Amino acid sequence: MSDLALGVDIGGSFVKMGLVDRDGEIKNSSQTPTPQSPPAIAISILIDDIVDFLDEAGCNLASLAGIGVGFPGAIRRPKGRVEAAPNLKAWNGTELRGIFEKELGRRVAIDNDANLAALAEYVWGNGKGANPLILFTLGTGIGGGIILDGRIFHGAWGGAAELGHQTIEFDGKLCGCGNRGCLEAYAGTKGIVSRAWELLREDRGSLLWEMMGGDYGSLNPEIIGDAARDGDAVALKVTSETARALGVATANMMNILNPECILFGGGVAGWGEDILLSKIRKEARFRAIKSHFSSCRLDFAKAGALSGVIGAAVLAFEQNE
Amino acid sequence: MSDLALGVDIGGSFVKMGLVDRDGEIKNSSQTPTPQSPPAIAISILIDDIVDFLDEAGCNLASLAGIGVGFPGAIRRPKGRVEAAPNLKAWNGTELRGIFEKELGRRVAIDNDANLAALAEYVWGNGKGANPLILFTLGTGIGGGIILDGRIFHGAWGGAAELGHQTIEFDGKLCGCGNRGCLEAYAGTKGIVSRAWELLREDRGSLLWEMMGGDYGSLNPEIIGDAARDGDAVALKVTSETARALGVATANMMNILNPECILFGGGVAGWGEDILLSKIRKEARFRAIKSHFSSCRLDFAKAGALSGVIGAAVLAFEQNE
Repeated sequence: MSDLALGVDIGGSFVKMGLVDRDGEIKNSSQTPTPQSPPAIAISILIDDIVDFLDEAGCNLASLAGIGVGFPGAIRRPKGRVEAAPNLKAWNGTELRGIFEKELGRRVAIDNDANLAALAEYVWGNGKGANPLILFTLGTGIGGGIILDGRIFHGAWGGAAELGHQTIEFDGKLCGCGNRGCLEAYAGTKGIVSRAWELLREDRGSLLWEMMGGDYGSLNPEIIGDAARDGDAVALKVTSETARALGVATANMMNILNPECILFGGGVAGWGEDILLSKIRKEARFRAIKSHFSSCRLDFAKAGALSGVIGAAVLAFEQNE
Repeated sequence: MSDLALGVDIGGSFVKMGLVDRDGEIKNSSQTPTPQSPPAIAISILIDDIVDFLDEAGCNLASLAGIGVGFPGAIRRPKGRVEAAPNLKAWNGTELRGIFEKELGRRVAIDNDANLAALAEYVWGNGKGANPLILFTLGTGIGGGIILDGRIFHGAWGGAAELGHQTIEFDGKLCGCGNRGCLEAYAGTKGIVSRAWELLREDRGSLLWEMMGGDYGSLNPEIIGDAARDGDAVALKVTSETARALGVATANMMNILNPECILFGGGVAGWGEDILLSKIRKEARFRAIKSHFSSCRLDFAKAGALSGVIGAAVLAFEQNE
């Protein structure tokens, strides 16, 4: 048995894969577009990609220590069925684990991508050994992972850690999930951009107008972060409000789960210490119980684009221990 | 070794104790006022009470299978120190476990009272075997317990499950903890009573005026529940708003922890199915992710006034397994 596991991270647009050793170091990696065909066909295309990738790496399926797959949706255990995939809706109901195992002829570990990113932080990233460890993934949606005693916490059937769907404002903004006042409605990409537009209507002098250069579809959290760093008032207001919403959720997590460490990953985490993390910290300090705040470290996630791949490989090692 | 454990539940006003068998059945119980002296003296009074109680039950310390103590405050592990006790502030910082063990000459298991009530529900009550199991305790404060894999979930040092201190309204009502918009500020006794007074000012015909009979200090959740059952508009509005706030927090727990069962105990739970639980359920159904709502049972706690005693005994058995 080799000391490398294969981690596969299926995303809405790309599939990333990598060979990972027991220390969480990536030896080889590759990226292909996510096949937009129906799931059964998409999976066989994926499996061809996997075999090609292994060939090029001078490796084969049988020699792997394990295979792990991450997926951007809730995965129902124990069967590994896709329960709800907001960005890959055609996959809902797919018996992901069963199909992969049949096609590959060996066991495959399957989990939600944010859960795997959290596991990667625990083993290899900025949450090394923290117990409990919580990761917020900040992107189009806000997801999360909870690691207890070094293992992914799944809840009753695998649906745990939907951290973006906690209500922070009773009759607040409508969220994509149908609820009002979810964290995601404020601090998800869509909420951030729509709030910026609200403020831009009142401020024709904002740097953001120039930065968009007439391409209004280009307004996104990255540009907003850049403008905030340049001192733009609209962008600073948007980033501060986002940080406040995240600070509320952070304090909630402290009081409910008494974590040792909370990390922030995903695109919006790129806003950095000054305009994001320091403000999250300030809000959480005000809101959380003192003893719960002071015993919890707040930081950014370490793992970048390949954290899902690393997490999937870690899970694969665990399954085959 | 006998098959009985001693459970002691220290409350703000009373100390309850009982001999409990391995099935969670109470064989003998007693109740004494909580000594209002400094903790060290209070504990030696308590220990005299314990010895008297055991004598009367024809039992002695050495023959017990274990001793468990519940306390109304956060207990820092592993030492069993009182971290924060809102209703017994003089006890803050007391090394509870150390003092008890020294005085009794044997091991003592110590935990937060709401955690122990949740454990009692898992072993013996309406959450038997549920995983995860969550209990909300509805009283002056709103506390809670989280049971994972049949064990109390403590978080990093024992502070987990402060379920009353999750923000459900960004700039909402001030809470006793210093934060704004906590669940407890809406659904704790004080929040409920103050909301009733707000509405009573506008409604001189409410049944509640008659029920108080001039004793304005008598307005409490029990009377409000009675008036709501009699169809009083003010009381119905207060109970509905309380249920909505609890419904938000219930949905949050479903999305964050994917529990199999959520229970409601404590005085306000006495409002019953029609004016409380059915409305919590309705609100949570609207707010939680569908798959998370449909897989979670909502119910009242079974254990009454002695749930803390039972939970403490269960913990004592576990410690001595």
